[in-house]
Amino acid sequence: MLTPAELDCLSVVLVGTRNPLNIGAAARAMSNFGFLRLRVVHPWEPSFREARSAVDAESVLTAAEEFDHLSAAVADASLIVGTTGGAQRTPSQPLSPLESAAEIMRAHLRAGSRVALLFGSEKVGLSNEDLSHCNLLLRIPTRTEHPSMNLGQAVAVVLYELIRETPAEALHPPAGQPLATAGERERLIALLLEALSSGGYAHRGTENLIEEKVRRLVRDLPLTPSDLNEWLGLVRQILWKLHHRETSAVHEHPPQPE
Amino acid sequence: MLTPAELDCLSVVLVGTRNPLNIGAAARAMSNFGFLRLRVVHPWEPSFREARSAVDAESVLTAAEEFDHLSAAVADASLIVGTTGGAQRTPSQPLSPLESAAEIMRAHLRAGSRVALLFGSEKVGLSNEDLSHCNLLLRIPTRTEHPSMNLGQAVAVVLYELIRETPAEALHPPAGQPLATAGERERLIALLLEALSSGGYAHRGTENLIEEKVRRLVRDLPLTPSDLNEWLGLVRQILWKLHHRETSAVHEHPPQPE
Repeated sequence: MLTPAELDCLSVVLVGTRNPLNIGAAARAMSNFGFLRLRVVHPWEPSFREARSAVDAESVLTAAEEFDHLSAAVADASLIVGTTGGAQRTPSQPLSPLESAAEIMRAHLRAGSRVALLFGSEKVGLSNEDLSHCNLLLRIPTRTEHPSMNLGQAVAVVLYELIRETPAEALHPPAGQPLATAGERERLIALLLEALSSGGYAHRGTENLIEEKVRRLVRDLPLTPSDLNEWLGLVRQILWKLHHRETSAVHEHPPQPE
Repeated sequence: MLTPAELDCLSVVLVGTRNPLNIGAAARAMSNFGFLRLRVVHPWEPSFREARSAVDAESVLTAAEEFDHLSAAVADASLIVGTTGGAQRTPSQPLSPLESAAEIMRAHLRAGSRVALLFGSEKVGLSNEDLSHCNLLLRIPTRTEHPSMNLGQAVAVVLYELIRETPAEALHPPAGQPLATAGERERLIALLLEALSSGGYAHRGTENLIEEKVRRLVRDLPLTPSDLNEWLGLVRQILWKLHHRETSAVHEHPPQPE
């Protein structure tokens, strides 16, 4: 059983939701299972206003926070979990069945770490850019003939799995220090991108791909805040060396990552 | 895991449902989890006709059977299970938490017995008359401050619990890919040291300390061989930038790692 303080460490983040009924349904399931922290990222405006008037979930909706960008909505989280219907578009992250993912999430919540649980829009789910923020992808075990769930129902099922009693897990207490949050990691990502872009990218138009790749690499590292500080110092030293040299004409292409 | 024949032994019975969206949502969750046998008892007529046109659950809705009386809808079942928000009105039946009730239901389905799973109307749930047909009542573990779930979400959660895998080993995801060896890691350490030493170290005599620090940072990362390759590529790109610039006179000291 999660305590109220542990429940409060989870944010449900709805990204680009259009249907007000779905925002209302998500809020209602949250209220049913005791998760009260809802965040919405660029929802369709009239939809969000309409959802705020939904009955049965009033307090969750009234307290909902609205964000322009996903990175701000997950900045305080040290575990970011994306939900997917199974057509996993970035094969880089581990795709966990709901049950295992819930166990990982509970371990973080019990350690006092913040967890962000992301649900994408009704039509397209989470984009590759959204997924690049995630440490873990989870899949609800729907059948292959009809994998895609209604948004409000998916929220209810995932939250139910999180609060379900699982006596077996008492045998495996979570271990270790809390991990660096996504916001802290973004500083390292920014420095690495600065180093990689210094003097220009090798190929025009690859900026987004490189950013997603660097974010993925940094995101997947189980760095504690103090590890992260050491990496920041190390990359700052390299950057300093880059900035204190004069640029010479460069005609060759730099080596590409393997 | 339930077989298709076992899944087919369960009927979801909606009693007196009024909102077509809820009938559609129930059918969609059924289709998601592989339960295809829907029965409706005196639904609000226009509602049922409207629900039949719902997308995403067409085959379940088209095949749905309509009954005038609950007794006819459950006549072939040997286990009849009612869902309740917790305000149990007939104290005669056992009230089980969802998890235990699901276990009992699975045992019946595996024995080839028919099970009827009843959900009441949105406003009043199952009546005392409806409950008098039930062998077992189940309750989803919602919080007492807000026990009442949306109908479609309740159907989704109960069906999910029925199909959920529970082997203990499934709770502990396999360790996954082997990690990069120390020898492979040394390549990354060497590149990072090359970047840090390019143009000389800031302080003479610190080489060993820096090398130890970098080795510790890299050693502690749980990198797979392919992660390692990506990091190698990334650091090589930064090194390339360092080497293709001309050294200018440097008098300041570079920033030290934090």
